[in-house]
Amino acid sequence: MDTPDVLVHTLREALEAELRREINAYHVAPYELYYEMLAYHMGWMGEGAGAKATGKRIRPLILLLCTAASGGDWQKALPAAAAVEFVHNFSLVHDDIEDRSEYRRGRPTIWAKWGIPQGINAGDALFTISHLTIHRLAEFFSPDLVLQAAQILLQTCLQLTQGQFLDISYESRAEISLEEYQVMIEGKTAALFAACAHLGSLIANCDPVRQHHFREFGRALGLAFQIIDDLLGIWGDEATIGKSTSSDLLSGKKTYPVILGLQSNGAFAKRWRKGKIQPEEVLTLAQELEEEGIRAATQAEATRLTQLALAELSAAQPSGPAAEALSSLTRQMSQRVQ
Amino acid sequence: MDTPDVLVHTLREALEAELRREINAYHVAPYELYYEMLAYHMGWMGEGAGAKATGKRIRPLILLLCTAASGGDWQKALPAAAAVEFVHNFSLVHDDIEDRSEYRRGRPTIWAKWGIPQGINAGDALFTISHLTIHRLAEFFSPDLVLQAAQILLQTCLQLTQGQFLDISYESRAEISLEEYQVMIEGKTAALFAACAHLGSLIANCDPVRQHHFREFGRALGLAFQIIDDLLGIWGDEATIGKSTSSDLLSGKKTYPVILGLQSNGAFAKRWRKGKIQPEEVLTLAQELEEEGIRAATQAEATRLTQLALAELSAAQPSGPAAEALSSLTRQMSQRVQ
Repeated sequence: MDTPDVLVHTLREALEAELRREINAYHVAPYELYYEMLAYHMGWMGEGAGAKATGKRIRPLILLLCTAASGGDWQKALPAAAAVEFVHNFSLVHDDIEDRSEYRRGRPTIWAKWGIPQGINAGDALFTISHLTIHRLAEFFSPDLVLQAAQILLQTCLQLTQGQFLDISYESRAEISLEEYQVMIEGKTAALFAACAHLGSLIANCDPVRQHHFREFGRALGLAFQIIDDLLGIWGDEATIGKSTSSDLLSGKKTYPVILGLQSNGAFAKRWRKGKIQPEEVLTLAQELEEEGIRAATQAEATRLTQLALAELSAAQPSGPAAEALSSLTRQMSQRVQ
Repeated sequence: MDTPDVLVHTLREALEAELRREINAYHVAPYELYYEMLAYHMGWMGEGAGAKATGKRIRPLILLLCTAASGGDWQKALPAAAAVEFVHNFSLVHDDIEDRSEYRRGRPTIWAKWGIPQGINAGDALFTISHLTIHRLAEFFSPDLVLQAAQILLQTCLQLTQGQFLDISYESRAEISLEEYQVMIEGKTAALFAACAHLGSLIANCDPVRQHHFREFGRALGLAFQIIDDLLGIWGDEATIGKSTSSDLLSGKKTYPVILGLQSNGAFAKRWRKGKIQPEEVLTLAQELEEEGIRAATQAEATRLTQLALAELSAAQPSGPAAEALSSLTRQMSQRVQ
């Protein structure tokens, strides 16, 4: 039996091949540039292509590990794994337009390279391809299971659009509550992680109770992932995240630490309420926030969510090297630095 | 048995109720504005709401008529009919952003009212809702049929994104050939019409040969629809189309009559090649094009496609008042003025 590390490596290679096979199908005349935009965004083509440009592929990896850890054949779950990665990338392509982000993973975004119209349309293409891809489960499974899987993915997309709606709406608000923030990240981040773990266990034909625990595991993991993303958005090492370290403070995004900082009503809150943060203030403000205990509180929340994820994972009764890989991946989540 | 007119009226009412039921499900806190944007775009809410704002609902009507004309129960086809109308509206929402169109059916577009980020996201929501809606066929049909229907809709969305890709790409080209234009409208317009007729006959459990003829009927009807749209984009009555009559000449869109005009190499082509058309030139240029026989040639192509559609419809062996409604709708297509 493989060690967890070898298994993860094998899954990553098989997944990347599956993703490429799907996108390569669209490399036909007269759609060369259509293909090129997708392959560029996926990290395979153009300047800066390579491991750093592909992203972490964390969501499909969780899906495949959940299938393997519940005794299923992960190879048969590849279409679902590819589908969730395409959904994630569709949402990145559109989010980058909505946020006017010109860089992603250290490279110009699709819209920055080819314009907003092609960017919107390329996102629509990835969205469509994701749902077409999950239908390929029909090669291995009954129409009934394929329909269930397709519906889980669609419900997740609905939650993504609802979370994104709130995120955009919050931009014009002076402050938001922690509860409002939580509703937003449930849709924007946790829903897709939950769907990955759910789909993985559904494909392995787990009983409904275990499927439920897998789903809750994914959800808690997704929430922890987002909280750490928020932490890195203020205190992350610029060199390792591919965009300006402090962009969250500059953009005025109301992330978890910012909301805590506003609640603590100290020097940070006083400055924030005076208007747009300037680049030269960013380091001082991050330091003030840290001195007010906000970095530690953010880290503690991520750790709490990680513990919750581990408890749900344990209740889901995973087994084998995939189970080990899932729990070490979860433990690493709250310590990640990129 | 109903007359064709009574049947069409009944179908329209049932369809509108189905569309509303789907969207109303999203009218929940804290997503009130998310709901409002969708209901506004569908023509039910806000300034100018009403029959003129909803659009013609021609695609779902074709779907329902094809079900009824092949002996199926159109009521069971309502989820598919609602789904194709949502797909159409998703594409309008994104196209309006891509084309920077501030008005649609005489009203401000979603992005013009609520900004580009909410506009993109509302389009994504309609896209997701369309695919969730077609899954509701599962109430009446086997998982196998639902999967087939869902895949037809997804393949159509893929063609839409390919057609839209070409349309955007052509904007930066000086001229395009008739063949390039045809490939573009196959994806951008004909694919969804073809899917409507195909889905309608699939749901009625037609044999594959008849399904094929229904599909080809829809495709030819869609092409005719687009050619007439192009004609109305230059010679239509401003009062009846809800946007500036001559916007196609002003925007530099390479539509069917423009391509014919460039090929005929007369006064129109000479002027067009000198650069952007100004509003005060529009009437003269439209007249020149007409004098060069381009309006008549465009009308003739629409008539040819309409005849082709009627031949395919006949081969599909439709029956009853729905068959009569389909053929009269087809005959009206090439004569429509809005």
